[in-house]
Parts: sequence; structure tokens; C-alpha cells
Amino acid sequence: MRFNGRCIQVSVFGQSHAEAVGAVAEGLPAGFRVDREALQAFLNRRAPGQGKHTTARKEADRPEFLSGLLEDVTCGGPVCLIIRNTDTRSGDYEALQDIPRPSHADWPARVKYGGAHDGRGGGMFSARLTAPLCAAGGIALQMLEKRGIRIGAHIAEIAGVRDDPFDPVNVCETDFRRIAENGFPVLNAAAGERMLEEIEKARLAEDSVGGIVECAAVGLPAGIGGPLFEGLESDLAAAVFAIPAVRGVSFGSGFGAAEMRGSEHNDALRIRDGRIVTETNHAGGLTGGMTTGMPLLLRAAFKPTPSIGKAQKSVSLSRMEETELRIRGRHDPCVVPRAVPVAEAVTALVLLDRIMDAKGRDA
Amino acid sequence: MRFNGRCIQVSVFGQSHAEAVGAVAEGLPAGFRVDREALQAFLNRRAPGQGKHTTARKEADRPEFLSGLLEDVTCGGPVCLIIRNTDTRSGDYEALQDIPRPSHADWPARVKYGGAHDGRGGGMFSARLTAPLCAAGGIALQMLEKRGIRIGAHIAEIAGVRDDPFDPVNVCETDFRRIAENGFPVLNAAAGERMLEEIEKARLAEDSVGGIVECAAVGLPAGIGGPLFEGLESDLAAAVFAIPAVRGVSFGSGFGAAEMRGSEHNDALRIRDGRIVTETNHAGGLTGGMTTGMPLLLRAAFKPTPSIGKAQKSVSLSRMEETELRIRGRHDPCVVPRAVPVAEAVTALVLLDRIMDAKGRDA
Amino acid sequence: MRFNGRCIQVSVFGQSHAEAVGAVAEGLPAGFRVDREALQAFLNRRAPGQGKHTTARKEADRPEFLSGLLEDVTCGGPVCLIIRNTDTRSGDYEALQDIPRPSHADWPARVKYGGAHDGRGGGMFSARLTAPLCAAGGIALQMLEKRGIRIGAHIAEIAGVRDDPFDPVNVCETDFRRIAENGFPVLNAAAGERMLEEIEKARLAEDSVGGIVECAAVGLPAGIGGPLFEGLESDLAAAVFAIPAVRGVSFGSGFGAAEMRGSEHNDALRIRDGRIVTETNHAGGLTGGMTTGMPLLLRAAFKPTPSIGKAQKSVSLSRMEETELRIRGRHDPCVVPRAVPVAEAVTALVLLDRIMDAKGRDA
Amino acid sequence: MRFNGRCIQVSVFGQSHAEAVGAVAEGLPAGFRVDREALQAFLNRRAPGQGKHTTARKEADRPEFLSGLLEDVTCGGPVCLIIRNTDTRSGDYEALQDIPRPSHADWPARVKYGGAHDGRGGGMFSARLTAPLCAAGGIALQMLEKRGIRIGAHIAEIAGVRDDPFDPVNVCETDFRRIAENGFPVLNAAAGERMLEEIEKARLAEDSVGGIVECAAVGLPAGIGGPLFEGLESDLAAAVFAIPAVRGVSFGSGFGAAEMRGSEHNDALRIRDGRIVTETNHAGGLTGGMTTGMPLLLRAAFKPTPSIGKAQKSVSLSRMEETELRIRGRHDPCVVPRAVPVAEAVTALVLLDRIMDAKGRDA
Repeated sequence: MRFNGRCIQVSVFGQSHAEAVGAVAEGLPAGFRVDREALQAFLNRRAPGQGKHTTARKEADRPEFLSGLLEDVTCGGPVCLIIRNTDTRSGDYEALQDIPRPSHADWPARVKYGGAHDGRGGGMFSARLTAPLCAAGGIALQMLEKRGIRIGAHIAEIAGVRDDPFDPVNVCETDFRRIAENGFPVLNAAAGERMLEEIEKARLAEDSVGGIVECAAVGLPAGIGGPLFEGLESDLAAAVFAIPAVRGVSFGSGFGAAEMRGSEHNDALRIRDGRIVTETNHAGGLTGGMTTGMPLLLRAAFKPTPSIGKAQKSVSLSRMEETELRIRGRHDPCVVPRAVPVAEAVTALVLLDRIMDAKGRDA
Repeated sequence: MRFNGRCIQVSVFGQSHAEAVGAVAEGLPAGFRVDREALQAFLNRRAPGQGKHTTARKEADRPEFLSGLLEDVTCGGPVCLIIRNTDTRSGDYEALQDIPRPSHADWPARVKYGGAHDGRGGGMFSARLTAPLCAAGGIALQMLEKRGIRIGAHIAEIAGVRDDPFDPVNVCETDFRRIAENGFPVLNAAAGERMLEEIEKARLAEDSVGGIVECAAVGLPAGIGGPLFEGLESDLAAAVFAIPAVRGVSFGSGFGAAEMRGSEHNDALRIRDGRIVTETNHAGGLTGGMTTGMPLLLRAAFKPTPSIGKAQKSVSLSRMEETELRIRGRHDPCVVPRAVPVAEAVTALVLLDRIMDAKGRDA
Repeated sequence: MRFNGRCIQVSVFGQSHAEAVGAVAEGLPAGFRVDREALQAFLNRRAPGQGKHTTARKEADRPEFLSGLLEDVTCGGPVCLIIRNTDTRSGDYEALQDIPRPSHADWPARVKYGGAHDGRGGGMFSARLTAPLCAAGGIALQMLEKRGIRIGAHIAEIAGVRDDPFDPVNVCETDFRRIAENGFPVLNAAAGERMLEEIEKARLAEDSVGGIVECAAVGLPAGIGGPLFEGLESDLAAAVFAIPAVRGVSFGSGFGAAEMRGSEHNDALRIRDGRIVTETNHAGGLTGGMTTGMPLLLRAAFKPTPSIGKAQKSVSLSRMEETELRIRGRHDPCVVPRAVPVAEAVTALVLLDRIMDAKGRDA
Repeated sequence: MRFNGRCIQVSVFGQSHAEAVGAVAEGLPAGFRVDREALQAFLNRRAPGQGKHTTARKEADRPEFLSGLLEDVTCGGPVCLIIRNTDTRSGDYEALQDIPRPSHADWPARVKYGGAHDGRGGGMFSARLTAPLCAAGGIALQMLEKRGIRIGAHIAEIAGVRDDPFDPVNVCETDFRRIAENGFPVLNAAAGERMLEEIEKARLAEDSVGGIVECAAVGLPAGIGGPLFEGLESDLAAAVFAIPAVRGVSFGSGFGAAEMRGSEHNDALRIRDGRIVTETNHAGGLTGGMTTGMPLLLRAAFKPTPSIGKAQKSVSLSRMEETELRIRGRHDPCVVPRAVPVAEAVTALVLLDRIMDAKGRDA
């Protein structure tokens, strides 16, 4: 369950109802002062219990640092942080052990791990595991910031309602600050209102909705990445697909590029203030697997939460017969709002890793 | 430039105009007889010069095996195969060294490698590097076949013209055989004709078009993959994004899932012939990062070929001034048809790797 | 600080005076019941405070399992275990921050991490980090045992006093049991007495002594390992050199082989009870980087504890001048007795990893 | 069979009697001009046919570069080099397929790879594979040289005859040049003569002898490496044990440290010319897994060549009965002289890799 970068590795551990979830981050540069308050603010953006659109489960995601920090400064050793699991109600799930929930990890996990699988609360497949991942990624975000690189994400779409997209050429830190300060991470507040209405409609219908997150990074130097499997897209996509519920990842014009002509999609090279830039940014800041120096833009599609109250068809594993299932318990009718900082976190881990790697290779 | 799997590693090497391109595949099981004829037939599907829709550059992609095979049987050591570069016309590119081609690797490669970059013919960023990758992946395909797993891909879309999609539940080997036997890899011949017309139109307009490849794998056991960064989607996406020109990757309903409700997207679990299956397959055969046992379905969006004859805006690096560029030379107006076997090849490498890995972990 | 195996990874974390030390072990097979009592007994062999030959620091090394176990059974997810640091007296070390201790990590760590280095108690270079490593390795030992593979180590030498060596051909589990039951891990009790006398002499002289650990594994199948960098010796040596204070590692006849003739060193192949064996075992169970099926035998040389009470020459970093240093605090005058289970632990991790890996590659 | 560094990976491939042996080196810095003549001179030190002490097999080890170099300058892509196998006499080995040679890879390779194993000439276990490894390592040596780091090795011992050791504190480039210029790589010419006599005596007796190589690196900065599995010793030992026939590896005082007292082994810290140095260098330039800035010193023990003309006891696999074996063919009665540049090559790969890695992590 680890992010296995070239310079940085993050071992995420824990199950939804284990003693704790946590992460061990190795390879982070020594001597960096972590802004604990800013980190907590970042984690709060992912934490549940912030409104009707999220689960009622209330847990402050307050990481306890066991190692790697000395008075908040990285000492060069692995940073281990844990978040205790406290508000767990395993009873909710006991009945479900025999009947796998449709479109959940339950069935393949049963095949993979046999009876040993810890299915309580989704076990290690729970989105709760993104809490320590965000803590590690949140440190990476701060480290990138010091290098002049900023990352921000917003909800691009929920249930068909679209936010304004980032301006591919001019997206900047101001946009990110606006989003982060917003309780609901969108650029266009009116679109956000309509999204919340759609989520609430789904909730009342005991159903759920999906959506799209758009993430940008600005301030990147050109030339980070490489050919074939060294491509930055490969690392970023692998990290973003690690987020539960992601079904698609694209860069720049993405699937839209498939319907464009070359003359339309190509980004003309120009000179602005003595720097080489592109006039448009259909590439999303990446050509040949490498950064161009323009804003990096990626999109991740999230499926609707598979846990819904509505009756669903499933099977009883013990009796090997078809049956019906109604899922109780507390679940987000939409995972997208809380996924926004997670997308930022994994993007930060990949970018910091590749920038450190590139630095080592400089002649 | 290597596929860095858990059990299998493939180091791809070479530049478009170097002595050779090639690959070293490590970790392949010993004692497997490679069907050289079938492998060549597979490589021919990727080779250029097959029709108006591909570049006129003519080179039989005939791999020479330097090691790892003894009378066509894997001996357990690294398989090194090379393909000599013969029909190279470096002259075509010399003028371009100073003026980076828009939406090509030229500009970031210049930043990354400085003057040392071998820009001839795209250097190591050339799609020619997919030839040895296909040779390695072609062996993996044969190894999977022996395990009852088959992989097939087709053109899902070019320039907005759509092929019939795979049936997510019933796609099978017969579909793959039909496509592979077809000169132009589509399920619906009429759609294929219209695609060829669009490609020809683009070619005449000195322009290019993009498209989408859909790839499926059948015969997979359930439970291959794992949580977070262990997810099979991460490995597959990383491998597919390694193919030049890919801008998006999705599984099952992909970006479409973002607009669905949970009750619509969830795949009901059912029992058929004593096996647990899903009624629909919006998941594309993957939930919780693991195979469900249903067909695995992925889509990859390709941008239009950036090399177009039309005049384009660019810059002269030596003079640091804006200029215009017309690209000469031989280029596919659409990379999608030749990308179809490449998608199969990288999918095969990932699946073989993860199946071997899972076997080692079985208690 | 992680053991980065092919199938198993163990991230060890913590500093001597941090909140905790611990480990996250990924890739362990699911469904294995950990014998907690046996594990604790194993850890007790490493724990301090067992006699005059070890430091007076008293801490039960009782791992707290945060994840990966459900009622003591591995659930397939990462096993995180922590050991709280309680009996830390940082005051002992404060004076030392400016004056690096000779032959300690202090000076290079200062260069590497700058002022951020957590030097308290040796920080992450402390032998205390071998406690969680032993916990992870102790689980691997149990997993190997179930596969019929047993590992045992003893003190081969301390301060020039030699224990009986393992019989290279006939070493067996009975030997290991005898050693483990012994408070002082030797085969020859009289030799053990003399070793203890030497340690006590060194202690009284405010000095320290080194020694050699010999470790054996029996029950291994032939054919585990491979050529060049795939060799089992490489993995084992890397793991054993990870133990603090190791200065040499050898297999079978080791450095003695350098003085033998081929006719003397070669192990004749013979048939015993229908199995192919070797008559002698100068190879230590490894030829061509692979197991032969005979007992695996390795030796690790440990330097004398660098922390000694005697006055030593060092430098003041702040004043950049030469000075004298007397180290106070509690230190083992010999690390070798407590290193015995650590050698077993890392050997177990490597062997389990390579056996799982080999299984995945079986045709 | 690949060196799997943090920044550099070298995939070595080939079998003794395959079309070729070779290597693909990834991650080498771009823009470095390889001195081809110096590289060939380095490879000649390993090549056979240089005197009575080496096999009569005559093959110029002339690497052909297929990729990664443009007019001898690294372009940033993988460097693929191959060395064709020409002078192979497979007939010599055919009779041996059924009767494994004692202390060779034959028997475990048969178990591991089954009938698919390419046993001709030792297959992939042949020392011939060290030729491409030396070519890759030879480039690393040149890259280190440009960074002011020099590596040199000599024969420390053959058949009990000892060369003068390196001066642990003052060893320098002059020593290395003297050795490299010498046809027989020793510091003390008279000792070299006696070693040659011992080798010749063994040859006449159809026997073989072993020995020890000592390797040093000077010009290293302090602080390269890290705690536990990050230790430089681990990487170096893994690489040195990858050389066929190595049975032991040690650093500094090595196994001798086991018999020393702390007061004797500890290296006092001193100031010389404003730099912090150690008065002695029992540590061999490594404490806490990190370089101290003093000369790095390692020793590798080589077993006597297992291929000897004398009759040996072995078994017939087909008949499963004990038998006698006489090995014909051309074999070095001592591998140590040719192993000297191989030790330098692998040391160079590890040091370049870790230096690049450390650079990326610098704050």
C-alpha cells in the first residue's frame, strides 16, 4: 500500500477499524520545518463531518507523530504518523461479511485474502486510509511550496453540474487560495450550490453521485520526467488511481484530445518575458512525458459511492445463493468533495519525488 | 525507460536513429517456448508501411534475439532482443534541431538533456521505441494465453467516428481474433472505413487526427491487485501512459461514471454456472484495485500526431526569437491504428507481472 | 531505513529518543496466525537488561500492533508495530552534540543531515532500531518454520574466544533449540563462560570487545537465488550489513576459502537417501548465488562497541579544535550477544522474501 | 541480473555461448563524454589471454554501443552495449550436462530452471558476464573521476601469499596508477612473482587457488549512506557478492575488528588542514553506514576456481548414481587477477549511484 517513488516512499497502513491508520514517509529532505497548523488545516479539508454532503462519522484527523520530527523539523529519518481509530461502529458491518456489497472491494478481497480479510468498515480498502496519505502529502505540499511550486484542486463536476475549469495558461496560486478558503472547493459558487443540491437529492433517494476533480500545479520547471515508463504522466496516473473510486485520469485536453486535429491541439511555442512558453496548453503542461514549464493539469473521474441505502442484488457466500442487500451505516453520498485534497496530496508526492530525482541527475 | 514490475522488468533502449532499438526482459519464467511466427505476426500489426494511414518508412520490425532463448525456449536469463535501425534519414530532422516542434518532446528534452539530447527522429521519444516493447509484450501475451488469459484491443474512435464498443460482460477471444485478422483493427468494418476516410482527409490537409483505443482482457481470476498504490489500475495506467501520445486512461465506464448514480453504476453480484459474476460491468473488471473475474476493460485516449505539414508557430532557440515552422518528413497522420498492439503489449506485461506476484504470495 | 525485498518490504522507523520505534511490514502472506508468545520470547533474546554483559537500560520490548493483524492473524494489509520509548535519559547525551564520538555515526550524520540530525541516544543509528526489526523478522521466522525452514545463530567468537562452530553438513534444529534456550547463545557452555569473563574484563577497563555471529538455515530447497545481482549472497549480505557494527560477512568457508585449493574447497556431489547432497559444505549452502539444499551458513563480524568510558581524542565542532572526550551513559561492552537474534531476523526476512519470489516464477 | 540502484540500473544479459553478452545502463547523467580508449584499456585488464595465469580463450572484449551515446557522449537515454560471443567451443561442455560440476552453479541451476537451463559454458553464471558489467562500471569510474573520486584495487592475497596492503589513511591515486600499469595488479612486485608461481603450481597440479582483492576509493565526501538498510556497506556488499566466486566481503579491519578492543579499533577524530579526519582508519571510511571522508576500504575473498582438471566425485542426474568427473576445457586456475577490475567496476556503480541519490536529497 506504499507510494514507491524514486526518492520518497510512503508506506500507508491500517484498516478502517484497526487500532490506527498511519503512514511512514521515507526520503523526505532533512531540516524542513513542518507547519503543523497549516498541515492540520489541510487535513481538515479531507476530514468528515463538515456538512450534509459528508458522512456523520466525526473524527478529528489529528496525526500523532512518532518519529522523524524533532520540534517539528524533519531530522532525516522516516516520519511515522498515526491517526487512532476511535469512532468505529463495527456492528454496522457484521451482517455484511457474508454478502459482498456490489462494486465494493468485498468480493475480490474475499478471493484474495480468504477468510483472513478484515472487512470491518471496508478494512484497508476504506477511504479512511487517505487520511494518513494526506498527512504525508501535506508535508510534500509544504516542501514544494518552498521551492516555488503550488498545487491546487477543485471539483470540476458533480452529477453533471460543472464548475468553471482552470484557465490552462493562467491558473495561479490565487485560484488555489480561493478554493481552499471555500468550504466547498469550487471556483464558481453558484455551480457549487447546484452540486450540493444534487448531492442532497441523491442522499434523500438513498443513492449517490460521482464527479470529477481537476488538479493543477504551477511553478514547475521544464524537463521533469522522461520517455516511455519514465514519463511523469505514468507516475501521476499511478498515484491518482491509488485514490479509491477513481475510474479515469487525463492530462490537459484528455479524452477531448482524441477528437481534435493536430493543428488545433498543438500548443504553439512563443516567447514571453524572455521565457519560452506555449500559447495554449492543451498538453496540460506535459509533452514527451516531461513538464513544459506551463501549468500541469490533470483530471480524475470518481464513480458514485458504491454504498447506497437502496436495495441491491447480491449473493450470500455461505449459502451460494442470490439475495438482496440494503446497506446501513454512514456513508458519503458523494466522495468527490473530500477527494479534492487527496488529489493534491498524491500529486505533491509525485512532483516532489521527481524533482528530487531530477536534481540528483543534473550534470 | 524500463517497465519496472514486481516480477518482470523490461529495459527498453535505443533512439530512433541509433544503431538499434531493443529491450531486455528480466524475470520471465524459464522453459517457455516462444512461438516466433506468432510473435512476428503480432509485431507486423504495429509495423509501419501497411497502408495510406501509416508512415511510408519501411522497416521489417524483425527482432534479433541475443540472449535468453535457447532454441526459442526461455532459459531463465534476461531476454535481449534488438531491432536494427536501417531506414533512417537523419537529414529530415537536422533543420529542426534549433526550432522545437510544438507539442513534441523537443523543448522539454532540450531543457532536460541540454545539448546532449539526440533529437534525430525524435530520439528516445520516438514511437519507434514501441517496437521492442511490443516484442517483449508479445512474449508476455503468449505466456498469458497459456494461462487461459487473452487480451485484445481495437480502435474505439478516430476523429469522432466510433467503432462498436466491446460488450463489457460478454467480450471474448472470438472478438479479439476477428480484430487481429482485420487489417484495420475495428469491430465494425463500416466504422473502420469512415475512420480511414477521416485519416486520409487529415493527411491531405497536412493535418492529423487523434482517437481512442479500447483494450480488454478475459480469463482473469478474481483478486489480482490490492488497495491504494497496490491497485491494478495504477500499474495499468502507468504502463498505458508510457505509450507516446496517450492523454487519458480509464477503466469500465470511466469518465462516464462521474455522471452516473450509484444505483446505476453498481454492478449487481449474481451466480451463473456456480460462479460469482456481475450482471453489468461498469467497473471494467476492477473494484477496490482488484480484478473481479469479469472482463477487464480500459480505454486510452491518443492526441492527434503533433507532426503536421501545416505551418506552425514556434521559436528559434539559438536566436531566441519567434518564428514559423513547417515539418517535412514521413509521419502518420494518426497513431491510433498502430497503437492498438502496443496497448495489448503493455497490458500483457502488467497482467503477467501481477499474476506471477500474486502466485508468490499465496499461502 | 527499509528492507526492500521483492515480495516483502519492512520500513523501520524511529529514533532512540523519539516517541517510538517501529516497523511497517508489507507483503506478508495473509491468514497466518502469529504466535505472540513465541514472538515475545524471541524479542526477549534481544532485549537489554539481561545480565552484566548488556546495558542497564530496562525496557520490555513489547510491540504494540496497530494494524495488519486481526486476532493475531495477518489480514493481508501492512503490519504496523510500535515500541514506545520510555526509559530515555536524553541528558546523558546533550554534552556530546558538539563532540562527535569516535567510530560512531555522529560525524558523518552531522555532515549528512546538518543541524537537523537527532543525535539523542544515537538517533536513528541506535541499535534500538533493531527491536522492531526483530519483531518483523520474528514473524518471518514463524512463517518459514511452517514451511519447514529453521534458522538459528550463535556467538562464534568474542574477544578471540571461540565457540564450537556449527557442523556445516549436519547442523539442525536441535542445535538451534539448545542455543535459544541458553541464556547466553553458545554451543559450548565453557567457551561461553570465558567470553563472559572477557566482556566483564573489558567493562571493568571501561573498554569494549567485538566478536562474530554464525547463523545457519536448514530445510531450504535448492535453486533459490540466481546469477550476478540476483544472488542470494547479495541479499543476505545487504541485510546483515544493515545491522549496526557489522564489518564483515562471509558464507561457508568465507575468507578461509581464499587460502584453499579447488580440490580441497569443492564440495563433492553425492546421493543420500535418494537426494543429491554434498559431502562437505565449504560453500555454506550457496553456489552460483543459489541454494544447494545443504545448510546455509553465514558469519558476521562485529566491531567492538564504539562507546567506551576511556578517554578518547575527538574534536569540538563548534570551536573546530581538537579535544578529549569521555563517554558516560549506559552501553553494552559487547553488542554480539544481543545481535544473535537480529542476525536470525534479517536472515529470515531475506529467505522468506526470496522463497515467495521464487514461487511466483515457477512455471 | 541487474544492478538495481537508486538512480542507476544496469541490466546485464547474455549467456556464455549465446549470441552476445551485454548490458543496458539506465540513469547515467547526460552530456558525459566517454573516453573510449580509456574504457578499452580498463576492459583489457579483465580480458582473458594475458598470460599463463588466465584461460587460453582469446576474445577481445570490445563493446559495441547500440544506443545511449552520440559521438561518444551520453545522450541521457539507456546505454546498451553488447559484446559478441565468438570463440565458443560448446563441445567441451556437452558431456557435462548430465554430471553437475562440484561447487558450480550446475546443480542448483538445474533445480531452478529445469531442463531449460542453458548450461553451455556456464550459461548466465559464467564469469564472462562480468565483461559487460565492467564496461558499464568503467563508464561510472570515469564519471566519478570527473567528480574527483578515484577507485583502485589490487590482489591482496593469492594462495596465502600476501601483497602489501593499502595504507588505510594515505592510500591515493598514485597507488592506483601503479597497480593499473602493472600487468599483474599488485603493489609489491616480489609478492606478485610468488603469487604467479603458486598459480602455475596449481595449474600443473590440475588444481586451482583462491585469493583476496582489496579495493579502495578516495576523494569521497563524508555523509554518503544512511542508517540500517540505507547503509553504504549494504549496497557495496550486495554488488561485490554479485561477482562470481566471492565468499566474503569486509570493510576496514573487517573480521579482524572482531578481535580488537574498542580503544584499539576506534578512530580518533582529528583536524588536519582545517578538515576533520580520523587518525587511523579501522572503519575503512564507513561508520554508521555512511562515508567518513576517509579512504573507503573493502576486501573480497574469492574461492579457488571450481573447474579443476583433477578427478572429482559427482553424480549422474539421468541415472541418479554416483560417478567420477574430470573437467576438460580452458579455465583460469585462479580468478583473482581478472576479478580486480570487476571489483572496481561494481564499487564505481554503487558510489556513483549513491552520490547522485544524495545530491537529489540535499536541501
